Amino acid sequence: DREKKVAVLAGDGIGPEIMAEAVKVLKAAEAAFGFRLKYEYADVGGCAIDCHGHALPPETLALCEASDAILFGAVGGPKWECLPPDQQPERAALLPLRKHFDLFCNLRPSRVFPALVEASPLRPDIVGDGFDILCIRELTSGIYFGRPKGREGQGADERAFDTMSYTRREIERIARKAFEIARLRRKKVTSIDKANVLTTMVLWRQVVTEVSRDYPDVQLNHMYIDNASMQLIRDPHQFDVLLCGNMFGDILSDQCAMMTGSMGLLASASINESNFGLYEPAGGSAPDIAGKGIANPIAQILSAAMMLRHSFGLEAAALAIERAVEETIAAGVLTRDIARDPRKAVGTAQMGDAVASRI
Amino acid sequence: DREKKVAVLAGDGIGPEIMAEAVKVLKAAEAAFGFRLKYEYADVGGCAIDCHGHALPPETLALCEASDAILFGAVGGPKWECLPPDQQPERAALLPLRKHFDLFCNLRPSRVFPALVEASPLRPDIVGDGFDILCIRELTSGIYFGRPKGREGQGADERAFDTMSYTRREIERIARKAFEIARLRRKKVTSIDKANVLTTMVLWRQVVTEVSRDYPDVQLNHMYIDNASMQLIRDPHQFDVLLCGNMFGDILSDQCAMMTGSMGLLASASINESNFGLYEPAGGSAPDIAGKGIANPIAQILSAAMMLRHSFGLEAAALAIERAVEETIAAGVLTRDIARDPRKAVGTAQMGDAVASRI
Ligand SMILES: CC(C)[C@H](C(=O)O)[C@@H](O)C(=O)O
Ligand SMILES: CC(C)[C@H](C(=O)O)[C@@H](O)C(=O)O
Repeated sequence: DREKKVAVLAGDGIGPEIMAEAVKVLKAAEAAFGFRLKYEYADVGGCAIDCHGHALPPETLALCEASDAILFGAVGGPKWECLPPDQQPERAALLPLRKHFDLFCNLRPSRVFPALVEASPLRPDIVGDGFDILCIRELTSGIYFGRPKGREGQGADERAFDTMSYTRREIERIARKAFEIARLRRKKVTSIDKANVLTTMVLWRQVVTEVSRDYPDVQLNHMYIDNASMQLIRDPHQFDVLLCGNMFGDILSDQCAMMTGSMGLLASASINESNFGLYEPAGGSAPDIAGKGIANPIAQILSAAMMLRHSFGLEAAALAIERAVEETIAAGVLTRDIARDPRKAVGTAQMGDAVASRI
Repeated sequence: DREKKVAVLAGDGIGPEIMAEAVKVLKAAEAAFGFRLKYEYADVGGCAIDCHGHALPPETLALCEASDAILFGAVGGPKWECLPPDQQPERAALLPLRKHFDLFCNLRPSRVFPALVEASPLRPDIVGDGFDILCIRELTSGIYFGRPKGREGQGADERAFDTMSYTRREIERIARKAFEIARLRRKKVTSIDKANVLTTMVLWRQVVTEVSRDYPDVQLNHMYIDNASMQLIRDPHQFDVLLCGNMFGDILSDQCAMMTGSMGLLASASINESNFGLYEPAGGSAPDIAGKGIANPIAQILSAAMMLRHSFGLEAAALAIERAVEETIAAGVLTRDIARDPRKAVGTAQMGDAVASRI
């Protein structure tokens, strides 16, 4: 086995701080499990706009191409908010990366950590002992990338348009992923669509149903997106795996994440057919607390664990990191965002140390 | 003033039961405020499919055309669930009605009734004394009606597509409605878009910003749809009026409604430029409790109040109904869905009587 290369794109805001802790924990895992990773750093997002004139400079893309996985921090901040929405660092860095590497499968786990049930904005009787929903979002097609899109006409008749589009192949490959992964969990897939209105979603429902025949051990439900946004709040326990197209997955995965109340704890993975992947925390660059050493590094650390699992097949090491995080939280080592008593909160580096020491 | 005509389309499930109470309350308002309405009934939804072969039969549409407003109940149920999604009674009745009458402006108020704060699935410290969000949804354009849509190709390459489309005129008229209505409320509009990804939404943001210049007294914010689905749960109090396109409004209005925990209490209005409108409860046809006399008629009653306000300019009568509902709830007269102690719950007709007697 050759040494695996990780492209480390820490980005803006708290990105570099939380990334340092993720690398710290990865190194502890390397030592404990006897594997070696090579870390190579490049600029991305707002800081890349400042230094190179692009949110995703060619040299950064080249580094990613020469790597086996991308560990991504967070991008954006007030400094770049004056840019037009479609040139915002987040969009301008992430969408091209997703498309370039065909990262069609986005995994966004939203779980409530047992020690942090009360962080959820939902009532205790609804959260119960916590819930655990995996949102699987198609990430390289749908209305994000459909053509044609544009503007035409003049004056009041000027019209802008976008195309939502899915092929059978695109739906099939993400559906298979959902069923495969559901098998390793509670064996329940809820496919989200709007088949009562959208032609794309009629095909979506049809193909998902066809694929489900190969997985008779997994239960499949179909749910309209509007109903799903209600049911999630009413009773999150009814869900295991949510299977969504690009747009609906964008919305529901954020809703799920906020429902846990632990944005600083949630990881995500975006992978392609060859298990190359981009791994990033669900939260943003949190410019308001950047540079203060108080950001929660757990989401970044758990993203690194997902990388070990999905891109490097290092399941045992991934589990060890996840267990270490769980133990750290259960031991009451908490950053300010999740600490009940802010005076007892630890800083970013202490949190990273606490996890690393438990590997 | 000639006598105004109301097309009463009660529909399926609990539709007829809750409609009877709305008409009862309207008649009490007629007596108290000295106006006269003429009620004419027609079939719609599943029962219309059964009797006429169409969810929206031509005679029903003709009645609506000859009327000044439509009071709509609820449609759908398990009996028709075997139909393809695009032929479901709800879709097949509502979408043609919306388009035919150009009902571009959909108003969906989501408020927490002070006496029912604990019905919300959100934590008490987040709900506070309740919140009051008005979702204004564009209802006759966007991806619901954009052309072209269809399917093409074969096998794995078969592709389905829909078009999201907005013209400047379409955005402008709904934006004006939002600012006008916000003026009568807390003077805050949050416009929901996804301008970082969709061309349509870049135009949306641009036109909404332009329109806002005519309303310097109203505060305007722009928020991405994914962020909105989080912020609503995190802190609903930051919102007054949500201004949404058709698809995003479908999702967020249902999320807001469920956040109140009072689906049986929420009304909606869909109006056109001439103040013709369709008024319907936010909840569904609830087939599981149909015919039992236990359904909550409040949403239907409040929809009737919206009709008096928006289509007939009878503001005082509308307010009287809303106050009567408020008092009824505050007096602890509650149907099973909202009663703390189900043994003390009243039935549908008793609830209607209680409201009517307070006009
Ligand atoms: C930044 C934006 C383009 C992106 C998306 O919409 O996919 C983000 O919201 C996300 O969910 O990763
Ligand atoms: C039935 C369906 C077509 C409809 C919609 O999507 O608009 C419904 O969900 C609604 O919100 O009124």
